[in-house]
This record gives sequence, C-alpha cells and structure tokens, in this order.
Amino acid sequence: MNFLKLLNKSTTLYKSFKSNTIIQRSFSTGFRVGVSKDSLFSRIKDENKQLLHNLQSQNTMYLSRLITLIESKREDHQEQSRLIISYLLQKQRESKDRSFRIGISGPPGAGKSTFIEYFGKYLTGSECNHKVAILAIDPSSVRSGGSILGDKTRMTELSVDPNAFIRPSSSRGTLGGIAKGTADTVVLCESAGFDIVLIETVGVGQSEVSMDDMVDMFVLLVPPANGDELQGLKKGIVESSDIVVVNKADGELMPKARFTVSEYQSAFKLQRPKFENWIPKVLSVSSQEKNGIEKVWKTMCDFKQEMIKSGEFQKKRSKQNHTIMRKIIEEEIVEKLFESETVEQILPQYEEQVKSGEISASYASDQIIKAFLSQPFKVK
Amino acid sequence: MNFLKLLNKSTTLYKSFKSNTIIQRSFSTGFRVGVSKDSLFSRIKDENKQLLHNLQSQNTMYLSRLITLIESKREDHQEQSRLIISYLLQKQRESKDRSFRIGISGPPGAGKSTFIEYFGKYLTGSECNHKVAILAIDPSSVRSGGSILGDKTRMTELSVDPNAFIRPSSSRGTLGGIAKGTADTVVLCESAGFDIVLIETVGVGQSEVSMDDMVDMFVLLVPPANGDELQGLKKGIVESSDIVVVNKADGELMPKARFTVSEYQSAFKLQRPKFENWIPKVLSVSSQEKNGIEKVWKTMCDFKQEMIKSGEFQKKRSKQNHTIMRKIIEEEIVEKLFESETVEQILPQYEEQVKSGEISASYASDQIIKAFLSQPFKVK
Repeated sequence: MNFLKLLNKSTTLYKSFKSNTIIQRSFSTGFRVGVSKDSLFSRIKDENKQLLHNLQSQNTMYLSRLITLIESKREDHQEQSRLIISYLLQKQRESKDRSFRIGISGPPGAGKSTFIEYFGKYLTGSECNHKVAILAIDPSSVRSGGSILGDKTRMTELSVDPNAFIRPSSSRGTLGGIAKGTADTVVLCESAGFDIVLIETVGVGQSEVSMDDMVDMFVLLVPPANGDELQGLKKGIVESSDIVVVNKADGELMPKARFTVSEYQSAFKLQRPKFENWIPKVLSVSSQEKNGIEKVWKTMCDFKQEMIKSGEFQKKRSKQNHTIMRKIIEEEIVEKLFESETVEQILPQYEEQVKSGEISASYASDQIIKAFLSQPFKVK
Repeated sequence: MNFLKLLNKSTTLYKSFKSNTIIQRSFSTGFRVGVSKDSLFSRIKDENKQLLHNLQSQNTMYLSRLITLIESKREDHQEQSRLIISYLLQKQRESKDRSFRIGISGPPGAGKSTFIEYFGKYLTGSECNHKVAILAIDPSSVRSGGSILGDKTRMTELSVDPNAFIRPSSSRGTLGGIAKGTADTVVLCESAGFDIVLIETVGVGQSEVSMDDMVDMFVLLVPPANGDELQGLKKGIVESSDIVVVNKADGELMPKARFTVSEYQSAFKLQRPKFENWIPKVLSVSSQEKNGIEKVWKTMCDFKQEMIKSGEFQKKRSKQNHTIMRKIIEEEIVEKLFESETVEQILPQYEEQVKSGEISASYASDQIIKAFLSQPFKVK
C-alpha cells in the first residue's frame, strides 16, 4: 500500500463524513450530541411519517408495519428505525403518561398462555379499560433459530380483542439483538396507545435474569409443585422475581398450590430483597376457573406505586436503557469487525494458522484487530 | 475537521503502519500472514530470551516470571507475550511430544484439593514419572475479583514436589480473559517440560462448560450423593464430562458412593455421547485412603489413546485455538472501543441522553460506533 492510495482513501473518508449528516452534526459542534425532536422528525421518510401519523388509530396494521421496519436488517431501515424510536421517546418524555411493562416467565407447564389470556382479558375488560400489548420472546430461538408459533391461536379471545395486540418476537441471533428489538418494540406499542405491555418469555433459562433488564416488574408464574420439583428452579430467577404467581390453584391441585405458595414465601424471607421497599409477594390464581386475578393485579399496581414513590421506577428504566446501549455497542462492533472486507480477506489464513498451532490465538487476534482498525471507515 | 487536518492524520496512519513491522509484513505481501519461528524469536527482547533459555531448567522461577509477563496488562508486555507464545507453539509443533491437558471440576464438597494432591503425587511418583502443572481457575473471581488462596497450603506434598508446579490463576475480568491467560499459561508449562497439565476450576457454574474448550479431557469429580442431591447437578456439566470420578468412596460413604456410580452410569446411557468412540466412564476413588487412582489414570490414558487414534485429539485442540481466538477478538475490540479517546469523550453525554430517554439506545450505539471507527487508528 503506498501513500497515494492511502491519500485517496482518506478522501473517501472525508466524503463519507460529509454525506453522513448525523456524524457531522455531532463532530462539527465539538462532540455536542443533543438532537431535537424536530430535527429527528425531519429526517424520517414520508412513508414512515405516514405510519407514525396513523400509529394511534384503531388499526394495528401501522404498528405492525413499524415493528417490521425496526426488525429489518437493512441498513437504511435501521437508520430510519433509530430516528423513529428516538423521536417517539422524545414525544413520550413530553407527555405525562406512564406505561407499565410486565415481564412474565415460568417453567413449561406453568400455563403461561392460559394465564395471559385470563389476565389480558381482565385488563382490557370494563373494570380496567386498559390497552394491552403482548410480546413473546423465545430465548431458545437464539440457538435454534425457531420462533413462537400458535400464541395467537392459543389466546383465542385476546387475539380478536381490539384492545389487545399480540406479537411474537422474530428477533433472532443474539440475546442483545432480542433486547434491542424488544426495547424498540415496547416504545412503538406504548406510542400506539398500549399502556400495558406484557413480555412473555418461554422456558426458564439464563436469559430470564436479563429479561429483568427490559421490564418494570418481573412475574414468575409457576405450577403447583412438591418439594423436589421446587429445588430444580434456578436461584437467579426466583431472586429476580417481584411477584410469584402459582397458577392452576384449582380442583385436586389446590393443596399442592397452597404448599407451593408457602414454600416461596419462606424462600423470600431468607433472601436479601431486590428493592428496599418491596418484599416479593406470592399469590395463587386459577386461570381455568378465572379466579384470583384481581388480587394479582392489585399487587402489581401496589408495586408500581411503591417504585414510583421511591424513585426506583424511573431509575430502573434509565439503567435499562443504558444496559441495552452497552449490549448493542458490544455486539455491533464485533459484527462490524467480522463483516468488514479487510477481516473477511485475512481471517481464513489466520484461522488456519491458529488451528494448526503455528501462531497463538492472542497473536492472531491482535493482528486481526489492528488490520480492522487500520482500514478507513466507510459508511455503508 | 478540515481536509488538511485529515491529511495530517492519514500521514500518522501511514507512519504507524511503517513502525509496526508485524502489520507491515502481512500487508506488504498482500495479506500473506505466515511468520517464521526465527522472525518471531528475533523480536523477543533479550531479557525474555534469557527466561526462555532457562525455561526447561529445574528452577520454576523462569516459568513463573513468564506467566507473570503474559498476565501483565501492559501493552509492551502483551506484545512480547504474543511473540513468545507463538514462538513456543512453533517449537512444540516441531517436537513429537504430546502433553495431556486435563480439566477437573466439581461441586464444593467433592474434595478437589485432596484428590489433586493424591492424583498429582501418583503422577510424579516413580510409577509414572511425569511432571505435573496444576493451574487453578476461579470463575467466581470474574465477578468478585477474588482469587484462589491456600491451594498450595492445602496440597502440602505437591507444593514441595520438584516435579509439580502449582499456580492459581490471577486472570481477572472476563471469561475470555481467563481462557486466553490459561491457554497461554498451558503452553508455557508444557514448554517448561510439564507433560501433564491439570486445570482445576472452583465451583460448578456455567463456566465449566466452556472449560471443555481448554482441555483434552474433562473430569467431573463428585462426592457420594443421594437421589435428591444428584438432581441438582447441572445437565450441561454432566454432558460435557468424559469421566466422572466419585470421590470419598471410603468408610460409611461406601454404599452411597456405589449408588452414585450406578446413577451416573445410567445417566450416560440415556444421553447422546460426546464422542463417537468414547462412552464416559464412572469410577470411584478414595483420596483419603489413597485407593483407586491407578484405574482412573488408566482410563484417562485409554481416553487419550482413543482420541488420538480417531483424530479427535488434534481436531479438538485446533477447534479450541480457534474458539479462543474468536473470544479474544470479541473482547478486545469492545475494550478498545470503550477505552478509545474519542469514545471516552462522547460517551458520557450519550449515556446521559439515553438514560433520560432523549434518544434511543440504538441511536446512541450507532453514533458511538461510527465515531470510534471514524477516528484514525493509532498503534499504541
């Protein structure tokens, strides 16, 4: 590589600076990063402005289309999504409305779909009059690439309820990818008028612990169980619960349900509380016999009030945004590295040498990173 | 930023290319990345050459010093470490010696230290005549920053055995950091003549599964247990074991130990084997009464032979090197981003805006990554 070539590349670099208005804005003002709502809005394409304009209408088609946009991998779609979500966030800040984001998780057999159908219908009913969005995340799809099927068919009443919106997550790949997609989807749903967002995860795995990074309240739904079965539950999930709901408290399972409630109550007594002003509650419901949801909902509202009063509510949301930002940065810089032309060119040879033991993993990594950082940055 | 400034920066960029001979080598030859042993050796500093020269002496001080060097965070130390490890790897390739890397893990109460003392003394004894290095990794220190204390004091006989070398890992921070440090330490120990490397991890956590990325054979050490206690064991760890050793098979625990052996044997029958030509064996020992280690060692040697025969041995090591390389790249590029001057300058303001909900996490991440990649690369 000679100097003239490099000079040429630096001209490209300069051009890409100019063409990318966002970067230029922040750079030209000496790293001032503020950006106004109007400025964000002005850069949103007309077709997307149209979607935004109709977002609060009864027709959830507009919401669905915007979710599809933010889930798209195309660079121009992602660029638009970033503008749209930031714009909506600024609008949210101006209003006094406060949504409630509730995470629901539990082992297979807890009856999550039936519970959400029961809970959701209660919330949209005349007693509560809420609008409820239900997002389903399948952490196992991180590996298998699968997605949740049949959620809509299992929730027969909710799926035709105009005040409910059900959306399985199609985010694939990394956990961070899911977190990012979900965070943006939540903002879209809230902006569309859904004041309660239920986020359901399938299976009890490691990922639920980080689910707590996305919601205001974390609900652990469990089936009635005996002592042996209770031991199997992962400690981290119980620890991060704000409320445990024992489902299927009906018929023959009644005594087992009562036992399970008291077991969780004792467990919480032994453990250090997550929040100073909230001791996790344990309640039971029967989704089948539609019994007990009022108390569950009242407890959830109490929790929200306590959190708002102590300032924890806002503090947690702030922290969540920050955590998600870090995750996105970490994953995207790695992705950019491995997808860069330079690295794609040299990686196979380094891999070969590392595999054969000719050079150490540290040596190769260092060379690859240096090569990546030495290439002039191109805005796609 | 005007064009002249940028031109100036690109000159710096060019200069840094020239000064960094390693990059230049690979770039000037059109991305040919080969590097000879002699060329590596010539770039090793004299003081480190001296350490290398004395590495195979009876005095393990030289080995210790080199381990300290590779664990150092200083950029020049890291540069030297990469050269040294790659040089030693090339030397290893030339020789026919094959070391044996054995990972030992198990829940608290399994008696790991007593077992390793018993096993280690057997290996260095007149019957086997091996030289054994024992590396201890504490995955919990990833979070707590703590380190293993007292390993040497608990292994009273081994710690004074000239054919044994005990080293607790002082690698902190990330799991990848530990993997990298351990991989390099293993190469150093092997080059110092320790033909058997035992890697001990403390506690049974998620990290053991990735421990299998560092060793030729994975040993799960367990105490005698009843049915209930067995259920608690995480599936992933049992699945990745090549051999299960039930310790404390003595005195009153004898029947319980026998029960545990048969339980693990049935478990392995139900599960898909890790290797086509190896069904995990379950054996029992008494480290207290020094009973049963011969059979354990014979089984380990059988395993190694089988793996070499099928080609799995070399295949696994190749794959491990590759995995570690990926991990190092992923962690170091993220570290470089957050430690870069540009990002350090703009991050606080973006964090503030993300926390307050003024801009979305995706928007901020995108801006930060673009700013990082737009800065001219400087070789430290």
